[in-house]
Amino acid sequence: MQLTRAADYAVRVMVHLATLPPETRAFLPDLAEATSAPESFLSKVMQTLSHAGLISSRRGKLGGFAVLPRGREATMREVIEAIDGPICLNVCLNGGKECERKSWCPAHPVWARAQRAMIDVLMSVTVSAIALRTSPQGSVPLSTCDN
Amino acid sequence: MQLTRAADYAVRVMVHLATLPPETRAFLPDLAEATSAPESFLSKVMQTLSHAGLISSRRGKLGGFAVLPRGREATMREVIEAIDGPICLNVCLNGGKECERKSWCPAHPVWARAQRAMIDVLMSVTVSAIALRTSPQGSVPLSTCDN
Repeated sequence: MQLTRAADYAVRVMVHLATLPPETRAFLPDLAEATSAPESFLSKVMQTLSHAGLISSRRGKLGGFAVLPRGREATMREVIEAIDGPICLNVCLNGGKECERKSWCPAHPVWARAQRAMIDVLMSVTVSAIALRTSPQGSVPLSTCDN
Repeated sequence: MQLTRAADYAVRVMVHLATLPPETRAFLPDLAEATSAPESFLSKVMQTLSHAGLISSRRGKLGGFAVLPRGREATMREVIEAIDGPICLNVCLNGGKECERKSWCPAHPVWARAQRAMIDVLMSVTVSAIALRTSPQGSVPLSTCDN
């Protein structure tokens, strides 16, 4: 039950692009450094984000990557799903595939509620809102995981 | 970002055992049928649940599996973690391994909040509470996933 590395890098790179001055285009090596992602792996992530209409990608000297307005306003959920497809905590929550136990399984409503709670948080924050929390020194208050 | 099949089957089997009359011991083939799990796969899940002290396991004619009081009162989170280890939505939330971005990454607090929200739901329900929702006909109101 863990986010894929690709989705993690996608959030990192979207937020980084959104912190850059308007009209700035960034190149893959710089983005790989900023996100601590392997360049070849990040390249595929950028392609998917571009196909999803969240960033623009241009080749050549005046090329590079830039966040599109739609990408700036995308929620964390949208960025994750652009990479991994619909968030689905358990197979029984997959709208497409039916679980034959779904109609009576007493655990099903709990999975649905847990997924809803997580998605609500991921839908509550946009890329631009997260980018605003990045100070010029790149420091925001440390949050610990209190699970 | 999906639950493992092993953890899904673990929740199914724990709930099923908790619906049986007290002192009842169940055998693997029956449990496999009740949970729609492959018998060999479920066997490993049962072993892990037994090591975690959530069920008792006895060999022989008078053997079989039974839920222990601690298993009955275990939350869904505890059952999942008995199988998969600590729930960790993103690598940066892993208490053991440090993410060098954690102290300043603006996405980190959002991951932490999303994980907290999901865990809160999974901690709010015990095996016995879920089992109580199973009617003799195995029917509870259908819940749809509204993500």
